[in-house]
Amino acid sequence: MPGREFFRTRTVAEALAALPTGRVTASELVGLDDALGRVPVEPVHAPRQLPGFARSTVDGYAVQAADTYGASDGLPAYLDVSGAVAMGSAPGVTVVAGRAVAMPTGGALPPGADAVVMVEHTQQVMPGTVEVTRPVAPGEGVVRADEDVAVGQQVLPAGRPLRAPDLGMLAAVGVTLLSVHSRPVVGIVSTGDELVPPETAELAPGQVRDAIASALAGLVRQVGGAPRPYGIVADDAGALERVLRDAVEVCDLVVVSAGSSVGARDETAGAVARLGPPGIVCHGIAIRPGKPTLVAQAGDVPVLGLPGNPLSAMVVFGLLGVPLVRRVGGCTQVPPEPRTRARLTRQVPSRAGRLDVVQVRLDEDRGHGGPQAYPVLGASALLSVLTSADGYLVIDEDATGLDEGAEVDVTLYR
Amino acid sequence: MPGREFFRTRTVAEALAALPTGRVTASELVGLDDALGRVPVEPVHAPRQLPGFARSTVDGYAVQAADTYGASDGLPAYLDVSGAVAMGSAPGVTVVAGRAVAMPTGGALPPGADAVVMVEHTQQVMPGTVEVTRPVAPGEGVVRADEDVAVGQQVLPAGRPLRAPDLGMLAAVGVTLLSVHSRPVVGIVSTGDELVPPETAELAPGQVRDAIASALAGLVRQVGGAPRPYGIVADDAGALERVLRDAVEVCDLVVVSAGSSVGARDETAGAVARLGPPGIVCHGIAIRPGKPTLVAQAGDVPVLGLPGNPLSAMVVFGLLGVPLVRRVGGCTQVPPEPRTRARLTRQVPSRAGRLDVVQVRLDEDRGHGGPQAYPVLGASALLSVLTSADGYLVIDEDATGLDEGAEVDVTLYR
Repeated sequence: MPGREFFRTRTVAEALAALPTGRVTASELVGLDDALGRVPVEPVHAPRQLPGFARSTVDGYAVQAADTYGASDGLPAYLDVSGAVAMGSAPGVTVVAGRAVAMPTGGALPPGADAVVMVEHTQQVMPGTVEVTRPVAPGEGVVRADEDVAVGQQVLPAGRPLRAPDLGMLAAVGVTLLSVHSRPVVGIVSTGDELVPPETAELAPGQVRDAIASALAGLVRQVGGAPRPYGIVADDAGALERVLRDAVEVCDLVVVSAGSSVGARDETAGAVARLGPPGIVCHGIAIRPGKPTLVAQAGDVPVLGLPGNPLSAMVVFGLLGVPLVRRVGGCTQVPPEPRTRARLTRQVPSRAGRLDVVQVRLDEDRGHGGPQAYPVLGASALLSVLTSADGYLVIDEDATGLDEGAEVDVTLYR
Repeated sequence: MPGREFFRTRTVAEALAALPTGRVTASELVGLDDALGRVPVEPVHAPRQLPGFARSTVDGYAVQAADTYGASDGLPAYLDVSGAVAMGSAPGVTVVAGRAVAMPTGGALPPGADAVVMVEHTQQVMPGTVEVTRPVAPGEGVVRADEDVAVGQQVLPAGRPLRAPDLGMLAAVGVTLLSVHSRPVVGIVSTGDELVPPETAELAPGQVRDAIASALAGLVRQVGGAPRPYGIVADDAGALERVLRDAVEVCDLVVVSAGSSVGARDETAGAVARLGPPGIVCHGIAIRPGKPTLVAQAGDVPVLGLPGNPLSAMVVFGLLGVPLVRRVGGCTQVPPEPRTRARLTRQVPSRAGRLDVVQVRLDEDRGHGGPQAYPVLGASALLSVLTSADGYLVIDEDATGLDEGAEVDVTLYR
């Protein structure tokens, strides 16, 4: 059985780098209604130009710009109005020298015209004639047919989860069905003889409800994965190995919350090691909380063994599991986390060589130069630490702590 | 017909404040699998204490702390081991003076014990006897039965969208079904004779595909709402009024993207005004882009008239629509937006009294003291401005622009 003594403690970056290149999910077609947050497999190129025709950007008159040169309040240019463009229709008229055509914002520029004068710079003096009091340059008041997007231009990159404005762009160029990575299926296995399902009404002495599986499922959903619960497995290496073998067959990533005692953790490590090559790449990560973490791969499926207490498990999953869900799901341009700068209200020690994750509560009183970050203290076994925190700060491996009053970057829960 | 002249331009805050208190959605029951991001109607109180029994936080031996006082490497305390606690079981033994019971991390503390000595500070010298080389204080190595949560304690507030760790807390206290606000139904109406559905393969001259509806639906989903598309209505006040009447019957909030020309906008304003009291509270917001915005309410349903071009519509919906979706959906503790500090690469002018929203692209090269924010320029009719931006910055009403090199807060797209 591979004990921890065979593996030296690694940093988070080393652990992620040590995993062989794993799988990336296949593609599926989705419509615009289901595309938010999904990850395009290929860059999207515009099949057509946008807006597709020269459009007016103002209400006014389509003209030949040369007809307005020198126009002023004192010496206006007089143009004959030879018609009007209707929204959504082809312009039925042509603009020739000395003439103007009435335009709505967004209307198609008539042939012959090269600019649109804003209505605010005109006056209708008699029926059929308009007075122009300011000159326009060619192209003024007009968006070119390909000014937004040219034919064949890349409008969206591969690997970046689709954002709301991206859906507008896809609609505009008429791409209403597109190829995105399937949601990575993340198997969630809980171990521990003490665990019972959350639905259990009354607990026998020594039992606790499985909190980790529900919290992990939430994190997985938040980053675009599809959680697949495998329930609770007793601290029995044979039973655990059977469940894990099923999971690596079906899932793109498997997460097992190891039992909290040393014996249970060693059993988990043994079961994971027996899943096959390349096996365990790292046992023990230089994080607090979260040291007893297992990083492994079975075939092309990463397997993550999390500490047995919920706070540590959440911290480790945030640092290692979330990047893996993204990687497996084809996301190469990671959306930003919400963050804020804050001032630390007390000194926080840390050991060099170890990454410390400190839960903090924010006081948004900006009277004293920005929010204050209060470290939320408590054993890592406490869930209330997590739910009362507004976010966390990370003290890097090379730092030896933070001083009271230090300016810190807090990653916010959402 | 209420023209814009009857309404003075308002700031965003004034417009939101001017809306009478509207509806808040009713409640529905959801299970933990569907609870992420949902908004609890009432605070959640713990029906039981957590962890529910005194638990060991280490692998070691349960003892009476007094038996270890003065223990050291040179003068260890010797205790008889009178049994072991198994995970998930009631402790079958009692600890009396001079005795110890073997404990796994997370095991239930046996009666009589008041501390747990870490296994690292013990040595098994002969079967049935353990040598303790460090003293422990009462309570050391133990989490109290109610240390995480006391019975009846509030564990989650009302009005804060549920986060992943919150789901863990709910599971831990056995609350697997809870009352949350229904998702606010947001009616989305597009107007404009030039608009055609995104699925339209070939466009006639002057036509454009409806981009706003898809982009708005994405924004609505992102903040927990349920978009309800009403399709495209031609620029005809009667037809628009009929669709809007249907929408305010069924929806919790209605958004109509007004046609882009002055005439179409006035028709939209007229149709909205005829929906009934309290009616239009503001026509024209001091935002760029986005000035021609309409804020109204029909009964207790807010109605928002957005500018006809996608960029302006998205900006206005972000500033006014998103807070309304949250308000209607019972969200009183708004989750943070992702933000970053950046340095502006060029001067951006702004007029005092008007809020300017400037799209920016970020260069994450941190070689020169943090990311650089490049304003993305282009007409507000261009969708490519939005999709090539990484986020936006807001120049407040009281500012008159930003200097090159200014440190700015960029709200990031996700």
